[in-house]
Amino acid sequence: MGSARSETRVFSGIGASPGIAIGTARVTDRSRVMVVEASVPPEDIPGEVVRFTAALSRSRDDLLALKESIAARRGAEHLYVVDAHLLILDDSMLRQGTIDLIERDGVNAEAALKKNLDKFKEFFAGIDDDYLRERFGDVETVVERILRHMVGKRHERIDAIDEGKRLIVAHDLSPTDILQMDKEKVVGFVTDLGGKTSHTSILARAFEIPAVVGLETITVEDIDGLPIIIDGTTGTIVVNPSEETFRDYLRRKQHYDYLEQELLKLKDLPAVTLDGHSMRLMGNIEFPEEIPSLKGHGGQGVGLYRTEMLYMNRPGLPDEEEQYRAYATIVENVAPEPVTIRTLDIGGDKLATDLHLEDEMNPAMGLRAIRLSLRRPEVFKSQLRAILRAGCKGSVRLFFPMISGIEEVRSAKAVLRECMEELRSAGIPFDEKIETGIMIEVPSAVTIADLLAREVDFFSVGTNDLIQYSLAIDRTNEHLAHLYQPLHPAILRSLKTVADAAHAAGIRVCMCGEMAGEPLYLPILLGLGFDELSMTAVSIPRVKKILRRARRSDAERLVARALTFATAAEVESFVKSEISARFSESFD
Amino acid sequence: MGSARSETRVFSGIGASPGIAIGTARVTDRSRVMVVEASVPPEDIPGEVVRFTAALSRSRDDLLALKESIAARRGAEHLYVVDAHLLILDDSMLRQGTIDLIERDGVNAEAALKKNLDKFKEFFAGIDDDYLRERFGDVETVVERILRHMVGKRHERIDAIDEGKRLIVAHDLSPTDILQMDKEKVVGFVTDLGGKTSHTSILARAFEIPAVVGLETITVEDIDGLPIIIDGTTGTIVVNPSEETFRDYLRRKQHYDYLEQELLKLKDLPAVTLDGHSMRLMGNIEFPEEIPSLKGHGGQGVGLYRTEMLYMNRPGLPDEEEQYRAYATIVENVAPEPVTIRTLDIGGDKLATDLHLEDEMNPAMGLRAIRLSLRRPEVFKSQLRAILRAGCKGSVRLFFPMISGIEEVRSAKAVLRECMEELRSAGIPFDEKIETGIMIEVPSAVTIADLLAREVDFFSVGTNDLIQYSLAIDRTNEHLAHLYQPLHPAILRSLKTVADAAHAAGIRVCMCGEMAGEPLYLPILLGLGFDELSMTAVSIPRVKKILRRARRSDAERLVARALTFATAAEVESFVKSEISARFSESFD
Repeated sequence: MGSARSETRVFSGIGASPGIAIGTARVTDRSRVMVVEASVPPEDIPGEVVRFTAALSRSRDDLLALKESIAARRGAEHLYVVDAHLLILDDSMLRQGTIDLIERDGVNAEAALKKNLDKFKEFFAGIDDDYLRERFGDVETVVERILRHMVGKRHERIDAIDEGKRLIVAHDLSPTDILQMDKEKVVGFVTDLGGKTSHTSILARAFEIPAVVGLETITVEDIDGLPIIIDGTTGTIVVNPSEETFRDYLRRKQHYDYLEQELLKLKDLPAVTLDGHSMRLMGNIEFPEEIPSLKGHGGQGVGLYRTEMLYMNRPGLPDEEEQYRAYATIVENVAPEPVTIRTLDIGGDKLATDLHLEDEMNPAMGLRAIRLSLRRPEVFKSQLRAILRAGCKGSVRLFFPMISGIEEVRSAKAVLRECMEELRSAGIPFDEKIETGIMIEVPSAVTIADLLAREVDFFSVGTNDLIQYSLAIDRTNEHLAHLYQPLHPAILRSLKTVADAAHAAGIRVCMCGEMAGEPLYLPILLGLGFDELSMTAVSIPRVKKILRRARRSDAERLVARALTFATAAEVESFVKSEISARFSESFD
Repeated sequence: MGSARSETRVFSGIGASPGIAIGTARVTDRSRVMVVEASVPPEDIPGEVVRFTAALSRSRDDLLALKESIAARRGAEHLYVVDAHLLILDDSMLRQGTIDLIERDGVNAEAALKKNLDKFKEFFAGIDDDYLRERFGDVETVVERILRHMVGKRHERIDAIDEGKRLIVAHDLSPTDILQMDKEKVVGFVTDLGGKTSHTSILARAFEIPAVVGLETITVEDIDGLPIIIDGTTGTIVVNPSEETFRDYLRRKQHYDYLEQELLKLKDLPAVTLDGHSMRLMGNIEFPEEIPSLKGHGGQGVGLYRTEMLYMNRPGLPDEEEQYRAYATIVENVAPEPVTIRTLDIGGDKLATDLHLEDEMNPAMGLRAIRLSLRRPEVFKSQLRAILRAGCKGSVRLFFPMISGIEEVRSAKAVLRECMEELRSAGIPFDEKIETGIMIEVPSAVTIADLLAREVDFFSVGTNDLIQYSLAIDRTNEHLAHLYQPLHPAILRSLKTVADAAHAAGIRVCMCGEMAGEPLYLPILLGLGFDELSMTAVSIPRVKKILRRARRSDAERLVARALTFATAAEVESFVKSEISARFSESFD
């Protein structure tokens, strides 16, 4: 290992937050506590239970102290992350479940807690949504904190790091760690665990802290104190870079930072083509802390506000008041621009307060989203009422996910009318004229888009799921990545069918899937006539740059030609050659 | 319990094989052997291993004896069921896996075998296909046989039943049990376990033995020796029927048997409408023993021959010769009518010889069917060569499942050309002019049906999967049964798109999903212009009866009107009222 400390080494992980960071590696002691299972004689069981509950309350004290420190540093709106961890601490499955295991199995508290964590793990692993699945990380972080209190290990606080230009190297980082990062001292981070859609990664992107995650064993390498470069766009890490590599990255970093600055200059310029056609460029968000980034990148409102976070990682369901406050905060902060709120888009297993496991063979085609909302009208109504009321705080639009037919739209709108009636009779103010839309993400919705367009005010195309279902390809399955083709002729035709149906009925059509934020696809979406695109905030300037150099008429010709090809490979090579010919410098 | 023996009791299960049977309940001792786990001292481990291997060889002796008895009774073509069980006995995972567990865990042979069975169970449970999943029953039956030899219990042979009109009541029955049934003595059966697509149920339908399965606890009821009626169409069982009920069922049975006889008279009449339009009505099969039933019901060849069975429940993969023999047997027996052979349509986990488990989050959208064949060209080629060679024995067509785009068809056809080239250079005779087609079951294939039609000789629409993917509804998920609508406007439009694209390109379009065998849908499929329908053999006469009373022109008008409705409920009520008005007596 000694000689390795002077060698140049390169590692590859998942680029979780773009940008280049250059600094000194600082390995923080966030390795997992080792747990050994031991039998406990019956007379010692109560003692184990006390040891566990004491660790719980010390963990609570920690979090409360952290809450104060974060509030002082970043402002009150970030506290929900700590609140989420406090909620997990109070979860009866965590608390009572562990006590039950100590008593039932007669084992030490650490082993019981670890076993209980495995149950959570199994539960989260069954969630068919990258984003929600990775929320398991929050539970793990809390459990780790409790374990450390039981074995007497200290949890190093990120805000205690006082040297400059440190690049944090950790087994895993929690969202609270990100909130504690002072960008003057911490220039980036890398972790063994984590994925692109983890809560930690989302916050890193919102705060524009470059990060590479999922490195699996980076903390095992002997790199503390060594010079390190990370590229959060490509997921590359270089330890002990040669002078040449260092200069190369420094130049790239300056170029990247320069481009970011240049792109940000577009922030206040209109999103309009050379031939005067406007497109609304909006942001996909789920946390209030993403709003500054949305505004900073020139987002014209929120095209997709995901409400799932409110329902996750907590013992019970949020009531109408809690939801109302959460929605109202977002709506007020984004006003006068609109916020497009999507009703709950998760599976039923996540709704049961006791985390009751109901295995579905193919969860992506299971009881979820609008199907679940219609099945649980009391849950659905509390969300709809909260959204209707938040409508008074600014401009709100509402839409339903996973619609497969007319009946579902009509049923959902009937429940909405009921909610309006109830609010009206109770004299509670709400948005009487709220716009309602649907996600177009199920193939049958494309096939009958003309019929659906008569029922709603707007369509929002979710390309991620639409591609998945249309091609019958699970997008989380790495063996099929080569078949997941956004430019598949069937997908292009489907997008055209949807856009044409919307316009024939005189309604708006938006896209909120990953395709919307990819500059390569902008000319296609412009040519198809999409009215709005909604994406991660940081993508907005790049997309706007292409848009401002494009002509609607050219884009329409491009689409007409793209539609003549029989294979995705042909479409892609045509679109790439056309676009690089016209917009080469825009793709820097 | 005593008084219950004189009461009338009604039970509901799954109708697995249609028809009414009236007889005396005969509960056979097929309850599971109870296994108790016990620790075994190291010096006794070799003894346990011997006990296990001795039970294996006694089980083998049983099966060989059974083979002789069945060969004498039903003819050699049924022996493959016993052969499949013999193959399971020889499976190294079963044999060596159990020995490893005895040695590793130091437990008795019964417990080790049971644990090993759980591994098989987990493996089969992960299979995303009703039909293949239920093949686990074969492994269970074999394990039960071994267990009985270890604990000294006798396995009662069904062919030892010598009284008449017995209705077998059993915890579960194996395919070999069905082969032993003498219809003079056994009029039907009911079981605790089983599903509609189990091997046992398929054979019951092929032999037309009424059956109700999935009753869960029927063997716990005290019904041995009591009068019992079963309706294999509705899944109803009546024990101790009142005189009135008895007469009612007797009348229904006579009516059913009469209708069956009447329908069978249609066997040799042409499948043609009143206005002279022909449709080819074919059978879906997977076993050679289904051919007599296919011919007996007037099937005009095989529209879907599923090849998965050849790959299942066995240690290794079948080689080209074994496949050739299997295909040639079917093709020779069906000639001169055509046999349409579908290449392998299962997931990758089933192909590994060591039953290596690779969990997929959403197996229905995973690495399976043509995706897997293209990924494992050596496996694919041995199947294609076998099919090409079998083509010389009669009339063969070949088609590929789960096609989502042009590239896959072209790749598959390129592999087929390679196989032809290899056979040609080796001087092995094969069908030079074999027709090739594709399954249309992925939504993207519908969207680009016009492009796909240029690449192949025929389409075969798999409605089960097409409906599942188009509506994003897992058809095995009982919570969503209400959303699985064959008459959803999106499905109707999709069927029309496919049929129109096929005819515009001058190729045939067939349907081989469950919709094809449902008489209610016949006028729709006729109106859409389907050229061929392929279904379970027993459905052919009913569909033919409707066809012979229909007019193509009326059916076209029906379709045109059905396409104007916005919801599945509207379409369905329209179609039902139209059809019952025209064909009421045909639906008896």
